[in-house]
Amino acid sequence: MTSNALYAVIMAGGSGTRFWPASRIARPKQFLPISGGLTMIEETFRRLDGLVPPERVFVVTAESQAALVAECLPELPADNILAEPCARNTAPCVAWAAHEIARRDPNAIQVVLPADHVIQPADAFRKTLEAAAAAAVEGGLFTFGVEPDHPATGYGYIKTSAQLGLSLGEPVYAVDRFVEKPNLAKAEEFLSEGGFYWNAGIFVWSTKSILAALAKYTPELDAGIRRIVAGGSDLAVEYAALPSDPIDIAIMERSDDVRLLPITYSWNDVGSWQALAEISPKDANGNAAVLGPAGKLIALDAKNNLVYAEGERVVALVGVEGLAVVQTETATLVCPLDRAQDVKAVVDELKASGINFL
Amino acid sequence: MTSNALYAVIMAGGSGTRFWPASRIARPKQFLPISGGLTMIEETFRRLDGLVPPERVFVVTAESQAALVAECLPELPADNILAEPCARNTAPCVAWAAHEIARRDPNAIQVVLPADHVIQPADAFRKTLEAAAAAAVEGGLFTFGVEPDHPATGYGYIKTSAQLGLSLGEPVYAVDRFVEKPNLAKAEEFLSEGGFYWNAGIFVWSTKSILAALAKYTPELDAGIRRIVAGGSDLAVEYAALPSDPIDIAIMERSDDVRLLPITYSWNDVGSWQALAEISPKDANGNAAVLGPAGKLIALDAKNNLVYAEGERVVALVGVEGLAVVQTETATLVCPLDRAQDVKAVVDELKASGINFL
Repeated sequence: MTSNALYAVIMAGGSGTRFWPASRIARPKQFLPISGGLTMIEETFRRLDGLVPPERVFVVTAESQAALVAECLPELPADNILAEPCARNTAPCVAWAAHEIARRDPNAIQVVLPADHVIQPADAFRKTLEAAAAAAVEGGLFTFGVEPDHPATGYGYIKTSAQLGLSLGEPVYAVDRFVEKPNLAKAEEFLSEGGFYWNAGIFVWSTKSILAALAKYTPELDAGIRRIVAGGSDLAVEYAALPSDPIDIAIMERSDDVRLLPITYSWNDVGSWQALAEISPKDANGNAAVLGPAGKLIALDAKNNLVYAEGERVVALVGVEGLAVVQTETATLVCPLDRAQDVKAVVDELKASGINFL
Repeated sequence: MTSNALYAVIMAGGSGTRFWPASRIARPKQFLPISGGLTMIEETFRRLDGLVPPERVFVVTAESQAALVAECLPELPADNILAEPCARNTAPCVAWAAHEIARRDPNAIQVVLPADHVIQPADAFRKTLEAAAAAAVEGGLFTFGVEPDHPATGYGYIKTSAQLGLSLGEPVYAVDRFVEKPNLAKAEEFLSEGGFYWNAGIFVWSTKSILAALAKYTPELDAGIRRIVAGGSDLAVEYAALPSDPIDIAIMERSDDVRLLPITYSWNDVGSWQALAEISPKDANGNAAVLGPAGKLIALDAKNNLVYAEGERVVALVGVEGLAVVQTETATLVCPLDRAQDVKAVVDELKASGINFL
């Protein structure tokens, strides 16, 4: 790949509240050490080790989080942080980064990936990434699809058609269509029919291919980003005027040139405390503990709980089962893991009461 | 009572761990705002308002807690804090305070009371106290007995015999015997038999009566305290050599001159998180919250829980029932209320692991 250097675009603009109280407006999930000692964004950055050097990594994030990104990724050049003045969904992120990379290296291959997924083992992921990058030199828009191990209703699906061949030994499929999050019956159908993958939101393409697709499918967005990258216009004004769309809808679902590489190893977008419990290592009683360096869990007659505690804290559980117990400096959450989605209601209540715990 | 001023002895030497993690070795229960905005020791002090002025209140506490006492009770003269160099149970507390008060006022009436009980209403308590103080002028050792409303197995009982008369309208009973904490069958027998009261550990006597009882029933303790009060000896050495006994065993169970005044209103020694839940005000769903001034509880579909949180913290409970959720700066406890006694096991485990959360 001497003439086709691989660049990475890490999308770190999320502001979700599904990990309240650990995630706050000021520190969303990608900046939390949710899956181990490192923050998720640093895990994502390290996952590229050996394939993409720091100077070829771009991070698109919210202006308010640019300093956090720099803190989490000290090797990242400051110019490689693209700070969005406002959130406009993922298509503008992708477009902005694509044009920035084009300016530096019009022959670059780009991988676009969210900052807050857990993917293991990293080696296997790098193998898929190398295969996609090699294939992308010839054109096409590549997406990663996760081989489903259960009829999940929380993810969008991608239906593949024919296998097109192999790239560096990895199978590459043609994509038939993108499917919205299904209900359980639909999801079960997908699994028994076969050829369906979870949409992982990870993309690989050549700079030429993505620029062509942007110009073709979202000309308004493309023109706005071109003005921004050219400089001279007011970023805040220009960005706010961009159409706000996810990249899937703006491009992927419209293009007839999309191809899929399967992820056959462990992938999780860690969408809730329950998801975190599922992917975390557990003790003999099924308790998972995500703790600060001097933190400690004492579990007496307690089973299948998830404890998340920041700083030098001890959490003692006695005789409880299946709970999420989350402890930060100023807030505590106790909730059955199978009701983790109700954290949203807590956040809504906090918003309504106007108190400052968000 | 012009010639018989009322003095108070607040026993604040406790070092229990039943309120871990709120109570620590460095800050036991009596220094916590466990039953409202005030610390328990300050509540106890305020309960004497109008009957005992600050200069006639003595507090016996551990040397390590003397500063905390002074902080909680700024009106208390520094000389009125008797700081024990080591814990020797309650008989030495009582004896030391009795002799100190004797030095100042040999005609004083003394009330001895623990720093960590909740008694409501305070008016009713003061009425019982006045009645006991008036009766004590004529001699005798008076104890307060709580009229049981259920067959509790966690308290010692006192069996009364004949009613001796009234003091300021309050009945005074002769005491037949003291009974150890019973099992449930025994406790049920007591209630159906009648004449049994819970031992509240609150005593009233004249200085003359208690000094006579000390000399008669615990001469060794009495001699040691006389040497301490006379000065000139080494307090730490002298105190460590005192016999370590509860006042009940050292004197009350031996004396044939003990009388009882009933407490017919609300009394609780708040011996556990469960006891605190019982006495705390609750919302419509039975949730009790003991919070710092800017603290907040958010309870969604949560019932009959107790939340205790220090400082400016929010605690969110979703879909849980009957739990104690305790949050301090460095520790969290989640435990069903009916297993609150198992907190002891957590403390034991912390001790065994040698980590600094006690």
